[in-house]
Amino acid sequence: MEFEEKTIKRQEIFDGQIFKVAVDDVELPNQLGTAKRELIFHRGAVSVLAVTPDNKLVIVKQYRKAIEKISYEIPAGKLEIGENGGEKAAALRELEEETAYTGDLQLIYEFYTAIGFCNEKIKLYLATNLKKVANPRPQDDDEVIELLELTYDECMELVASGDIEDAKTLIALQYFALHFKNK
Amino acid sequence: MEFEEKTIKRQEIFDGQIFKVAVDDVELPNQLGTAKRELIFHRGAVSVLAVTPDNKLVIVKQYRKAIEKISYEIPAGKLEIGENGGEKAAALRELEEETAYTGDLQLIYEFYTAIGFCNEKIKLYLATNLKKVANPRPQDDDEVIELLELTYDECMELVASGDIEDAKTLIALQYFALHFKNK
Repeated sequence: MEFEEKTIKRQEIFDGQIFKVAVDDVELPNQLGTAKRELIFHRGAVSVLAVTPDNKLVIVKQYRKAIEKISYEIPAGKLEIGENGGEKAAALRELEEETAYTGDLQLIYEFYTAIGFCNEKIKLYLATNLKKVANPRPQDDDEVIELLELTYDECMELVASGDIEDAKTLIALQYFALHFKNK
Repeated sequence: MEFEEKTIKRQEIFDGQIFKVAVDDVELPNQLGTAKRELIFHRGAVSVLAVTPDNKLVIVKQYRKAIEKISYEIPAGKLEIGENGGEKAAALRELEEETAYTGDLQLIYEFYTAIGFCNEKIKLYLATNLKKVANPRPQDDDEVIELLELTYDECMELVASGDIEDAKTLIALQYFALHFKNK
């Protein structure tokens, strides 16, 4: 059985700052004919499960326009142009910009967020040995964020209340529960 | 501190079968001025962590055009028009179409997959008491899938090899490790 879908024709729809949109006509494998695939191309992002010395998790409160809601999430940001290959540096930069922390980073997972139509891949780092930076890099000037340091149980209350509904943050919380919680 | 970003103007870019694309001009809170937000609107999806009586996980092998790779994932599918509110029925339908199984479903998580720019929300169900359906509904005719039943350890080998890199499947595997593995 063959799986690959070969592109016959690509129609480019949109070329934005955050993502590109295309519609491909593809040839299905196994003589199944053709189909259309609507696709989003994204540069990728990094995110950080930052654990403080007293075992709290660093959480960012922010407004998310796509869902028109306030959301509580682990620190994250998209890769900037030229940062490809330097994801760990990007994660340190985001951590510093959003939280004024720096620390020791270790890659724990990488995953596609919406694999059915989008190639955004997020690398998730664990940050430990956190220290406040004296003169941290400033936040992006179109971001309004509030910083919280919460226990795992407080985070799970935000999951229960629907305030944490973000896939990468759920993955980070489950990682914490599996590897960290009772240390 | 205010968080909400009010839409001043919306430019509709694309209205597809799978998603819509828009660019909003927003008014930032706290007199910060204006910004652009590139947005994807998606109907939402369901996914199923299906656990067999011998404690194996049902995994679907398929090609994902957005990443041009074969991917191993839990069964999932987008909501069809008219299925809003009936996510559990949609999850049972997807499970039957992709795996020929039916079972008892329980909602375990719901999450936004790419919250920074996309409103796709996935509901994740746990399916137990699996039984094969005698005359299952057919698969979508543009899908080529192969069905596997794997132990948790076999799934974790696919994570290690990079064959499982899908956020919803990672969430399901971590849920299994936290709640199911040693029962």
